[in-house]
Amino acid sequence: MKPLELLQQSLHKRVLVELKGGRSFRGVLDAYDQHLNLLLSQAEEVIDDQVTPHPGVTLLRGDSVVFISP
Amino acid sequence: MKPLELLQQSLHKRVLVELKGGRSFRGVLDAYDQHLNLLLSQAEEVIDDQVTPHPGVTLLRGDSVVFISP
Amino acid sequence: MKPLELLQQSLHKRVLVELKGGRSFRGVLDAYDQHLNLLLSQAEEVIDDQVTPHPGVTLLRGDSVVFISP
Amino acid sequence: MKPLELLQQSLHKRVLVELKGGRSFRGVLDAYDQHLNLLLSQAEEVIDDQVTPHPGVTLLRGDSVVFISP
Amino acid sequence: MKPLELLQQSLHKRVLVELKGGRSFRGVLDAYDQHLNLLLSQAEEVIDDQVTPHPGVTLLRGDSVVFISP
Amino acid sequence: MKPLELLQQSLHKRVLVELKGGRSFRGVLDAYDQHLNLLLSQAEEVIDDQVTPHPGVTLLRGDSVVFISP
Amino acid sequence: MKPLELLQQSLHKRVLVELKGGRSFRGVLDAYDQHLNLLLSQAEEVIDDQVTPHPGVTLLRGDSVVFISP
Repeated sequence: MKPLELLQQSLHKRVLVELKGGRSFRGVLDAYDQHLNLLLSQAEEVIDDQVTPHPGVTLLRGDSVVFISP
Repeated sequence: MKPLELLQQSLHKRVLVELKGGRSFRGVLDAYDQHLNLLLSQAEEVIDDQVTPHPGVTLLRGDSVVFISP
Repeated sequence: MKPLELLQQSLHKRVLVELKGGRSFRGVLDAYDQHLNLLLSQAEEVIDDQVTPHPGVTLLRGDSVVFISP
Repeated sequence: MKPLELLQQSLHKRVLVELKGGRSFRGVLDAYDQHLNLLLSQAEEVIDDQVTPHPGVTLLRGDSVVFISP
Repeated sequence: MKPLELLQQSLHKRVLVELKGGRSFRGVLDAYDQHLNLLLSQAEEVIDDQVTPHPGVTLLRGDSVVFISP
Repeated sequence: MKPLELLQQSLHKRVLVELKGGRSFRGVLDAYDQHLNLLLSQAEEVIDDQVTPHPGVTLLRGDSVVFISP
Repeated sequence: MKPLELLQQSLHKRVLVELKGGRSFRGVLDAYDQHLNLLLSQAEEVIDDQVTPHPGVTLLRGDSVVFISP
């Protein structure tokens, strides 16, 4: 199994995505590509315990991703 | 669906674009390319609740983009 | 229309170019390439409301560009 | 032997992964690729002696990795 | 005209080169390549009004260049 | 001789590896590749005179390397 | 003449190499490649007027180089 296959298994499930600069998102993984660009629906942004909902679908740029976990 | 297809669906709609360095833009997405270079019209730049309107069309360099949401 | 076509339309017009690190330039766009390398004539550099004129033509490296607006 | 062959030998063993920005993970290495993207199961994130468990499998982006040791 | 052609016209003339990190050089442009690697002779480094002469020819790495002006 | 041939001569000898961010490692160079990914055995990490031993073999990502010396 | 040809002329001569992050090296240039990876012998590292000798030959990663001067 290759690391990016985890994303295939995580499709349509909730994930935590940590970005560079201490910012993170929680949401349902709707799509991904090989650059780790991600689509999250029902996304919430979390910075220092402050939660900001992002209605609709959010595109995260793969270049900013540090890690993705369930 | 691939992540960048979200941008196709967002064409001519208002989006929020967060850039590296704590700066963000709101505007109507007029164009994009595969590097996430973006054209926004009726753009407003937001830094720490301070809003600066950018009349005309603004080109955002994809390399600076962290996320795009509706 | 692709994002970089905005630059074709902006040729010989005044633009604002924001660079990484909080530095920005105003000037007339004389040339560009696909890396967003830019030539500005009659350029003024703006850092924290301090304006420095750059006589002649200034070459901005595309890698440093954050956004370009009219 | 090439450096990345270490990862082949470390499969299914516990590793310490140090990331840029002073953040590190401990977990069992389940998969890797040539970009150093990593899958860790039973992962724990460690920041300044504060330990956060990440249940399930965590994908670490290779671009953020500084070093990997047993 | 393409942006890098400015450098062809600036050969053997004095230029100001601003580098990332608030450091800048003044000197005569002796050579350049498409990565914006530059050779400056009679170069002076300027940091916060402190001028350091660099006798001989200095090679500036293009990756560090922010802008070049006359 | 090309710079990376130094690593061939340093195989199985102790080296000092300085990483970005003020962190350094001492250890025996067991392997390297053209990206400067390195394997060190008997490695010690040094941050501000604080030494942390890393038993086993440590993989350092070439992207983080600043310099390597004996 | 191309910028990197300066390095050919500087072979076996003393050079000053400034690295990102305010660190610099002085030493005899023994080898270089097109990525600006450098080998310095009789190298001294200089940080804020503090000089650290590096016996043997030091490999500097080109990615960290800002400028090279005699």
